[in-house]
Amino acid sequence: MPSLLIIAHGSRRAASNDEVRALADAVRAQPGHDYAHVETAFLELAEPSIPQGLAALAQNGATEIVAFPYFLAAGTHVAQDIPEAIAAFTAAHPGVAVRLTPHLGAAAALPRAILSVAG
Amino acid sequence: MPSLLIIAHGSRRAASNDEVRALADAVRAQPGHDYAHVETAFLELAEPSIPQGLAALAQNGATEIVAFPYFLAAGTHVAQDIPEAIAAFTAAHPGVAVRLTPHLGAAAALPRAILSVAG
Repeated sequence: MPSLLIIAHGSRRAASNDEVRALADAVRAQPGHDYAHVETAFLELAEPSIPQGLAALAQNGATEIVAFPYFLAAGTHVAQDIPEAIAAFTAAHPGVAVRLTPHLGAAAALPRAILSVAG
Repeated sequence: MPSLLIIAHGSRRAASNDEVRALADAVRAQPGHDYAHVETAFLELAEPSIPQGLAALAQNGATEIVAFPYFLAAGTHVAQDIPEAIAAFTAAHPGVAVRLTPHLGAAAALPRAILSVAG
């Protein structure tokens, strides 16, 4: 059973980081999903970092982690910084498979979700 | 039939703004929605601005506009800047009703959408 790591940018504003943690709580509470654990990590300005978040899941027994960039735009963070942070983790943890998904802004489910928000 | 305005922050990086416009195209192309028009506007750094985007929809005949903040966090932009920009428009266009939705990060549909992204 895989685990899910929601990767946000991180903010100096604590309420923004708490908003991401509350989102992870809401994802975790959804019925019928297949994740053993759902946790958050932050690229910068908040903790845990991406390597810390991945390591915590691995310590909880995860051998398969889905890493989801909670980002709207495909900038350097999504294209480079997040893959590098994941690569640093996997080099040190060869027994843990990390699969990086498209970022939120490119998610195929997003257009339908926006209609349901706005409708 | 209402129209939908997707309000993004706007970026100095043109590709990020184009990503938002492509998202609006994808929303517009979804089957079965009830919007006469689906357009984008930007709080800053890109055009059209929020008042410009609202005015363009009104010029196309919209009398009911759903304004959706495409933002992850409930910061000053969501709490203050976007409502002020909308209020400036509605003061000048009393015949157009603008309904502001929760921002993306607080959308009830988001946890389920994230599971479908990552699954």
